[in-house]
Amino acid sequence: MQADNQNSPERKSLDDRNKMTELERIRHSCAHVMATAILRIWPEAQFAAGPPVENGFYYDVELSHRISPEDFPRIEEEMKKEIKANNVFERIVVTREQALQDAESGRLGGLTERPGNVSKFKLGNLADIPEGEPISYFRNGDFLDLCAGPHVMRTGNIGAFKLTTVASAYYKGDEKNPQLQRIYGTAFKNKTQLEEYFKMLEEAKRRDHRKIGAEMGLYAIDTEYVGPGMPLWLPKGTVLVEELEKLAKETEFAAGYVRVRTPHLAREKMYTTSGHLPYYAESMFPPMELKEKGAAPGAEVERYFLKAMNCPHHHRIFAAEPRSYRDLPLRLAEYGCCYRYEQSGELFGLMRVRSLNMNDAHIYCTEDQFAEEFRAVNDMYIHYFKVFGLDKYQMRYSTHDPSKLGQKFVNEPELWKKTEDMVRRVLVESGINFVEVANEAAFYGPKIDVQVWSAIGREFTIATNQVDFAVPSRFGLTYRDRDNTEKTPLCIHRAPLGTHERFIGFLIEHYAGNFPLWLAPEQVRVMTVNDDAALRDYALPLVKELRAAMVRVETDFTANPIKAKVADAETARVHTMLVIGARDVEAGNVSVRLHGKGHVGVRPKAEAVAGILQAIRDRAA
Amino acid sequence: MQADNQNSPERKSLDDRNKMTELERIRHSCAHVMATAILRIWPEAQFAAGPPVENGFYYDVELSHRISPEDFPRIEEEMKKEIKANNVFERIVVTREQALQDAESGRLGGLTERPGNVSKFKLGNLADIPEGEPISYFRNGDFLDLCAGPHVMRTGNIGAFKLTTVASAYYKGDEKNPQLQRIYGTAFKNKTQLEEYFKMLEEAKRRDHRKIGAEMGLYAIDTEYVGPGMPLWLPKGTVLVEELEKLAKETEFAAGYVRVRTPHLAREKMYTTSGHLPYYAESMFPPMELKEKGAAPGAEVERYFLKAMNCPHHHRIFAAEPRSYRDLPLRLAEYGCCYRYEQSGELFGLMRVRSLNMNDAHIYCTEDQFAEEFRAVNDMYIHYFKVFGLDKYQMRYSTHDPSKLGQKFVNEPELWKKTEDMVRRVLVESGINFVEVANEAAFYGPKIDVQVWSAIGREFTIATNQVDFAVPSRFGLTYRDRDNTEKTPLCIHRAPLGTHERFIGFLIEHYAGNFPLWLAPEQVRVMTVNDDAALRDYALPLVKELRAAMVRVETDFTANPIKAKVADAETARVHTMLVIGARDVEAGNVSVRLHGKGHVGVRPKAEAVAGILQAIRDRAA
Repeated sequence: MQADNQNSPERKSLDDRNKMTELERIRHSCAHVMATAILRIWPEAQFAAGPPVENGFYYDVELSHRISPEDFPRIEEEMKKEIKANNVFERIVVTREQALQDAESGRLGGLTERPGNVSKFKLGNLADIPEGEPISYFRNGDFLDLCAGPHVMRTGNIGAFKLTTVASAYYKGDEKNPQLQRIYGTAFKNKTQLEEYFKMLEEAKRRDHRKIGAEMGLYAIDTEYVGPGMPLWLPKGTVLVEELEKLAKETEFAAGYVRVRTPHLAREKMYTTSGHLPYYAESMFPPMELKEKGAAPGAEVERYFLKAMNCPHHHRIFAAEPRSYRDLPLRLAEYGCCYRYEQSGELFGLMRVRSLNMNDAHIYCTEDQFAEEFRAVNDMYIHYFKVFGLDKYQMRYSTHDPSKLGQKFVNEPELWKKTEDMVRRVLVESGINFVEVANEAAFYGPKIDVQVWSAIGREFTIATNQVDFAVPSRFGLTYRDRDNTEKTPLCIHRAPLGTHERFIGFLIEHYAGNFPLWLAPEQVRVMTVNDDAALRDYALPLVKELRAAMVRVETDFTANPIKAKVADAETARVHTMLVIGARDVEAGNVSVRLHGKGHVGVRPKAEAVAGILQAIRDRAA
Repeated sequence: MQADNQNSPERKSLDDRNKMTELERIRHSCAHVMATAILRIWPEAQFAAGPPVENGFYYDVELSHRISPEDFPRIEEEMKKEIKANNVFERIVVTREQALQDAESGRLGGLTERPGNVSKFKLGNLADIPEGEPISYFRNGDFLDLCAGPHVMRTGNIGAFKLTTVASAYYKGDEKNPQLQRIYGTAFKNKTQLEEYFKMLEEAKRRDHRKIGAEMGLYAIDTEYVGPGMPLWLPKGTVLVEELEKLAKETEFAAGYVRVRTPHLAREKMYTTSGHLPYYAESMFPPMELKEKGAAPGAEVERYFLKAMNCPHHHRIFAAEPRSYRDLPLRLAEYGCCYRYEQSGELFGLMRVRSLNMNDAHIYCTEDQFAEEFRAVNDMYIHYFKVFGLDKYQMRYSTHDPSKLGQKFVNEPELWKKTEDMVRRVLVESGINFVEVANEAAFYGPKIDVQVWSAIGREFTIATNQVDFAVPSRFGLTYRDRDNTEKTPLCIHRAPLGTHERFIGFLIEHYAGNFPLWLAPEQVRVMTVNDDAALRDYALPLVKELRAAMVRVETDFTANPIKAKVADAETARVHTMLVIGARDVEAGNVSVRLHGKGHVGVRPKAEAVAGILQAIRDRAA
């Protein structure tokens, strides 16, 4: 199963806590400081959970007063006092009895005992801590919280912070539980970083993929007729989709992949075999219940499901023919369209959708081939990073926890160790920037989440690689080895470009819509300085030549002033403008302008064309 | 709505009858002769319907004796007698009372009156003839049949015939009706044509796309996990799919199309608006009933349907932005995957499937632009015919019947006349081979079915063009015209390459799996005459060069005898074999072999490579 790259970090498990970065510790500590401040103002407040999240933190609180941004200055004032006090974050290990008593008295999650005001959410959290695991508090000043930590040493270590928004959320994310107020904020090591962050947010707003997507006519969401979360790719967005596919096809061809095409649905048996049903059913579209025409009256209804991932179909292609070790590695690639039933409230432009066109492939290989295949997958990532000018990236390598074999992780201790060692070695040897996180692997093998930073420094998880020991055997996939025995192949799931939806959403921000020539929806516009027929006659063969080479070229031969024509092309984010005046005709030249860069020179016609074609071929930045 | 190109001619309406070709008349008459013969043997037989169909005819009969091919000689013997008798096909117009009486007495559909054996199916057919329409019999010798005709003059005009198979069918195709025996046969003008037909069938069997598809590993049908009628495209078949898409994309780019991508499902409103629901519901997959998570308990369930055609999604893309006459013609192209719920009993390899990848496009244009756009669509067809070496084709131009305006045809008499005249003029002016058939247009406009003949002379309907006046207005599509009023565009639906499934099925037969270089799954195999390292070292840069140019090249450097290597490559239908021996290395040459053609010459290495690349670029036959 391809992991859901849409998963937000808010869904991080508690296991994370001990692996917090310094910034995460600052932010989590700031959540405690915020709770302290809120309790100073509203001592009756009941707190639930307050984790660090991407770019900040939140704390969920129950309070009859509706907190609004207007309250922020007041809360921030109290927070500053707590920071100035420079209180120690003190860890206290307690017995469950003690904790229960402190929750009953209202002391837990409060500044004092609060008779009659039981810390009900803390009680609930307490119940989630398995018997035998340590129960710990953290205390700063008067505020006592049930918390696994870790924290910074003192409240004074919180360099700079700011409260940002209020939302609502159900306790433990369950709509049957009470609705709470979720107060968001962020914190940094110092004021400069905080300011940079808000500047970056401003820039991100300017580059919002929904705004630019609409301006450029890249996609439309047609909730009324098509449904929420299922973008229609308009002609200009389809250019991006198809250029990415072309890039992937060329790259994968060179790397020895073969391509397949699979339907968008399958019978129920496919997903009971894969294990997606019933465990993943919540994230799948409901079934189509099909009764064969002409079937006997009592005949069973067949259930068909839209695919939420391509793997099972690829597994069945592996199974479609007898395989020998000579066929391996077999690298099956498909830009397959999957459907996932995300909650409508969580849908967000192209970044969180229900229809996902995945740059998918599954590599079936022997254990001996694994390291080489995995290395090649990493090389492909690095290649793509270069193509898109992504200087900053990180791979997050999730491994298993040996103490949870057979529960959270498939019980193959040897294979885990061997594969994880191989993966680690490849990562180290390739000089790839990675962090290792234990206990976060998928059920059936280690995985790698690929994080990249856009041009303005915003982080995106764009892709996931997984090693899969378990599913090939669920599907009974085997190959005949040299020794004439049947063996189960390993399977690498990989999707370096993630989905079209998310990756294009990312690229829009990354390029601020100013795509490089090879990606630009309108690559070239040929314009004449006036509507003189001689200029047009000179321009047309040029246009024809470019079109014959599949260049997306448009023309503007109108009588509008050239200044207006250029302004139009700039607004449309045309990459290259070829401007033609009488002098150009005489000399056999064109004037070249680049979007956002202005006039870059006068060139002989043939040279300008050759330069454009070369830049497209090279996928120049 | 794109017409269902899968529709078999058996579904022809009765309106057809008067437009029968000479061959169809022969075949239909032969059905009557067959009924005559069966009645001579089993006088109690009850006949239902006996139309001509593609390549022959059938007659449905109820009879306690199970007719099997072993009975054919006996029946054929009686048929020959009836043909030898050279009886006239006599048309008799009767009153409904007369017809009812003849059916009650068993005379209709019999050789004599058959007391106690009512002609029940003829009674049923009679009831389908609207009041006021003429009721006619045809009689040959003793056999009297309810029939609209037409027939040949005399039974002796049936040149040559043969009974072929028996199947079963429900009366009027309705499973609630009695099950009948369907006896198939065929007939031709003379014996030579009959023999050629059966020879062609033999050849078609040898070229059966299911057989070659399996041999070559082109596709797999995985009924158990994926479902019937939904092919998985294996790597070699995917090559065909993607080469066809590439051809279409290049051709459409040159013709000024823009591409779009749309999801595979839509909300119910889409299809109630388009009119597919409820009228087309039988051919669609059942809905997915989705309840938004977190929706109020009483909230309505949303119904989503898999798309059975791309038009409505494209219409919504047209509607996604305000349009002016300057945006027209707007040509939206998509190789969209649609799903149609065909009866499982009718599914047949790639030729009749449930998942259809359509070479679709919708051209939105003004009335003034229509003729030019339609001409360009035809040019594209002709272009494709040339690419695939299809010398024989015919366009079947279906027009409306003015007497059925407002019933069978949208009530736009002016628009019908104007558009049909335009279409006809374009067809005539382009010198295209076409036949015109009145009363067969789609509800909302004239249509053209494109028929081609494979290399062995078998006919396939591969594509349909339609002009659509009605649906754009159902979706409220408009553009702002020069005069500043809102107008509804015309829409041309076209899909020259039909669906991947059907077109590739056709191509497999057409080429007998021996695809031209540009299409061949394995284009080139480089092989050394032995496993000498020097030969391999010479071969590898050549392989690398071809791969860098995206040529699908494999190698065979084993120690097997070269004869065996060549035989392997021939079996795998590799298009071009480059064989390398010591003498080639010395001279800088390669020996070139072509599949099925043997050795074609020794060439300098660079020349061989250039030749291969050029043939691929040219899509040479």
